[in-house]
Amino acid sequence: MTGPRTCVIGAGLSGLCAGKMLSDYGVPYECFESSDRIGGNWAFGNPNGRSSAYRSLHIDTSKHRLSFKDFPMPEHFPDFPHHSQIKEYLERYAEAFGLKDNIRFDTAVEHAHRLPAGGWEITTRDGAVHRFDVLVVANGHHWDPRFPSFPGEFTGESMHSHDYVDPETPLRLSGQRVLIVGIGNSAADIAVELSQRFLDNTVVLSTRSSAWIVPKYIMGIPADRLFATSPYLPLSWQRRLARKSPVLLTGRPERFGLPTPNHHFLEAHPTQSQELPLRLGSGDVTAKPDIRRLDGMRVHFTDGTSADFDVIVYATGYNISFPFFDPDFLSAPDNRLPLYKRMFKPGLDDLAFVGFAQATPTLFPFVECQARLLAAYLAGTYRPPEEGDMWRVIARDEKRFVGHFADRPRHTQQVDYFVYEHDIRARELPAGWRRVREHGPVPLAGRAR
Amino acid sequence: MTGPRTCVIGAGLSGLCAGKMLSDYGVPYECFESSDRIGGNWAFGNPNGRSSAYRSLHIDTSKHRLSFKDFPMPEHFPDFPHHSQIKEYLERYAEAFGLKDNIRFDTAVEHAHRLPAGGWEITTRDGAVHRFDVLVVANGHHWDPRFPSFPGEFTGESMHSHDYVDPETPLRLSGQRVLIVGIGNSAADIAVELSQRFLDNTVVLSTRSSAWIVPKYIMGIPADRLFATSPYLPLSWQRRLARKSPVLLTGRPERFGLPTPNHHFLEAHPTQSQELPLRLGSGDVTAKPDIRRLDGMRVHFTDGTSADFDVIVYATGYNISFPFFDPDFLSAPDNRLPLYKRMFKPGLDDLAFVGFAQATPTLFPFVECQARLLAAYLAGTYRPPEEGDMWRVIARDEKRFVGHFADRPRHTQQVDYFVYEHDIRARELPAGWRRVREHGPVPLAGRAR
Repeated sequence: MTGPRTCVIGAGLSGLCAGKMLSDYGVPYECFESSDRIGGNWAFGNPNGRSSAYRSLHIDTSKHRLSFKDFPMPEHFPDFPHHSQIKEYLERYAEAFGLKDNIRFDTAVEHAHRLPAGGWEITTRDGAVHRFDVLVVANGHHWDPRFPSFPGEFTGESMHSHDYVDPETPLRLSGQRVLIVGIGNSAADIAVELSQRFLDNTVVLSTRSSAWIVPKYIMGIPADRLFATSPYLPLSWQRRLARKSPVLLTGRPERFGLPTPNHHFLEAHPTQSQELPLRLGSGDVTAKPDIRRLDGMRVHFTDGTSADFDVIVYATGYNISFPFFDPDFLSAPDNRLPLYKRMFKPGLDDLAFVGFAQATPTLFPFVECQARLLAAYLAGTYRPPEEGDMWRVIARDEKRFVGHFADRPRHTQQVDYFVYEHDIRARELPAGWRRVREHGPVPLAGRAR
Repeated sequence: MTGPRTCVIGAGLSGLCAGKMLSDYGVPYECFESSDRIGGNWAFGNPNGRSSAYRSLHIDTSKHRLSFKDFPMPEHFPDFPHHSQIKEYLERYAEAFGLKDNIRFDTAVEHAHRLPAGGWEITTRDGAVHRFDVLVVANGHHWDPRFPSFPGEFTGESMHSHDYVDPETPLRLSGQRVLIVGIGNSAADIAVELSQRFLDNTVVLSTRSSAWIVPKYIMGIPADRLFATSPYLPLSWQRRLARKSPVLLTGRPERFGLPTPNHHFLEAHPTQSQELPLRLGSGDVTAKPDIRRLDGMRVHFTDGTSADFDVIVYATGYNISFPFFDPDFLSAPDNRLPLYKRMFKPGLDDLAFVGFAQATPTLFPFVECQARLLAAYLAGTYRPPEEGDMWRVIARDEKRFVGHFADRPRHTQQVDYFVYEHDIRARELPAGWRRVREHGPVPLAGRAR
């Protein structure tokens, strides 16, 4: 092991996969995990509070698309595994590649300080200070709840979907008037669960942007097995071709009482739900547009209607947060975090990010692809372009992946996996290797020694 | 009112609709209802024990198909109304046409005795004896639970879907190993409900025949608005044309672990469920083939596997029962009840049945069509053919509607509504009127006087 000594923050999906690739490429690393277990978001009930999984959560990507290329999901898993099975898969992955040996559990990173001449001073919760050459941030972006702000005040109970476990935890949601704000996958799942008739709730779903709803299955085949973006055609053409597909698959949102989406299909994340349209069409869930204002127990909507509620569940997404960085050093205001290939901050050679994307269809193979680029970088077989070029590519990629999206914190990280993966494998890695042969690898501290 | 004095047994959907038509045609009638309310099967929690509705039940036919022709469903109802809304609709129907004036509530018919010279002696539970000229049986066929018989004995709890209310009633079904037998709409609904993750049940569904599963929505449009049988093409052709549609809409049942159906699509009732395939594909419900034998808490399946269960829910259908007839006079062994147009028993002029069919897509307009024929008959504007012809038509109709079905109690009553309605309206009513002009109406007691 001769590469730069590397610190990985987080042993969730991204940190585990990064660690596995670093081992493959012979890069020495240590992983700090605040919890007593691996899995991060997929460790339901994670004592570090960083899991947003609810009890009924199934992943919305089929197992075939989820699998890491070098570690297939078990055959006996269902098409859409439960969170407990995703966790089991990550455990098997960690076991198969001996990943836990490199993880320090119960070791939260309190502060990550970049030294003036490069390299890092990492302070952990126990007060210890560790020196590393390189820092890899893999602390996830689905744990710091984002709340919308509405005029007025709601005097009932409010909670974020991050804290939602099931209809009895943390609040006893039966016989209640429940308003769910948002229409992402969590909002859809929670609305479906809380509208089970025997719970005797009144469930209303309020959405500002509305959404195109797509099913998990098409003709009995997981939808994501039927469709994949081609890296050989402009994304804008493909989006245009696909524009009608949710109408053909699920029907127009207005049919179910939802507002008209303020975007075309694929210009914001579609919501994958087989059940929400049926619940709406059965009268078990009622759709409302955006909230105009709150007034005691009463909520006024932008269509002029209003109703009283006992509970509001905000399924309104997450902030990207780095509690271990000085905000002056690095932060992501409004979830804006411009990175080269969503990994490198131009000018900071000894810092990399893994897993900071809303990858379509799913994060798993995307993270694997990022981890491969990371390992090549730290092993010295890949070199990113010069700082100016990086900024130009960042701007171009943002335009390609995010430019067509509504300008909202929710959509700053959108990436099409198929296009991204093809770009990294077929263009970026070979180009980076040519740059290494021309200029040598980036002189990182560990390598320079 | 000069027609034969008519007794109607039952004030559910069929009895109400029959009564309404009799009033329209000026036929005097009285309706005996064992309960304190109308609605029969649709009166959730009906104190007469005759409702099979569970708390979460939504009808699987869209409101547009359900509506009686002369009484549209309220605009604000959802596409697939809840049972409470169906009940509300029937209440409005009864109110609009003053139907309750003719109903004696809390008056179960204990015995219906046909007098040797025609006419009826009806004994009610209070011991009173009533004389009528004609009897109309509308006591429904979804209230007398049918149980399959398997070798061995199950020592856990057993119940029929008829008694299922919700996950807490009548049994507390959480943290239980639940086996659901059957794959009709009730089986699918109950499997979906009991497999809600927070209930912490293990849910297995066992089916002998398997089923073709079709969605409730296609492209956001209630499926039954898109498809209707044509009365102008042979049904066998239409069945053949439609054979692939469940594969295109939902996928082959085997994809979800279900056995291969022992019949083609439309050769047995399809199961309408948007949710069951997803539950199976998410591992929340597991499919098994038929039961081979029971052994204590253990259930052995025909695929050689076995598992322990706490509870078996039999969602295995209903018997056709007439507790007020002497079995020697009339019964329906194995649900076989050959009737002319599913209404008249050849040779018994003063007896008619309403609502004894498994009508596709739904019973509501079918019952309305039968009630119209009934009223024309009793008012003397319709006369059925001679007894021999009736038997020939019964045989032909059975072949057309039921002949292609698996020979099981479940399928003895299948009728295609569109074909039936066209047959009654365009052929049977005019032919019956010609017969009246030729031979006079059937000499019923009330009319003969």
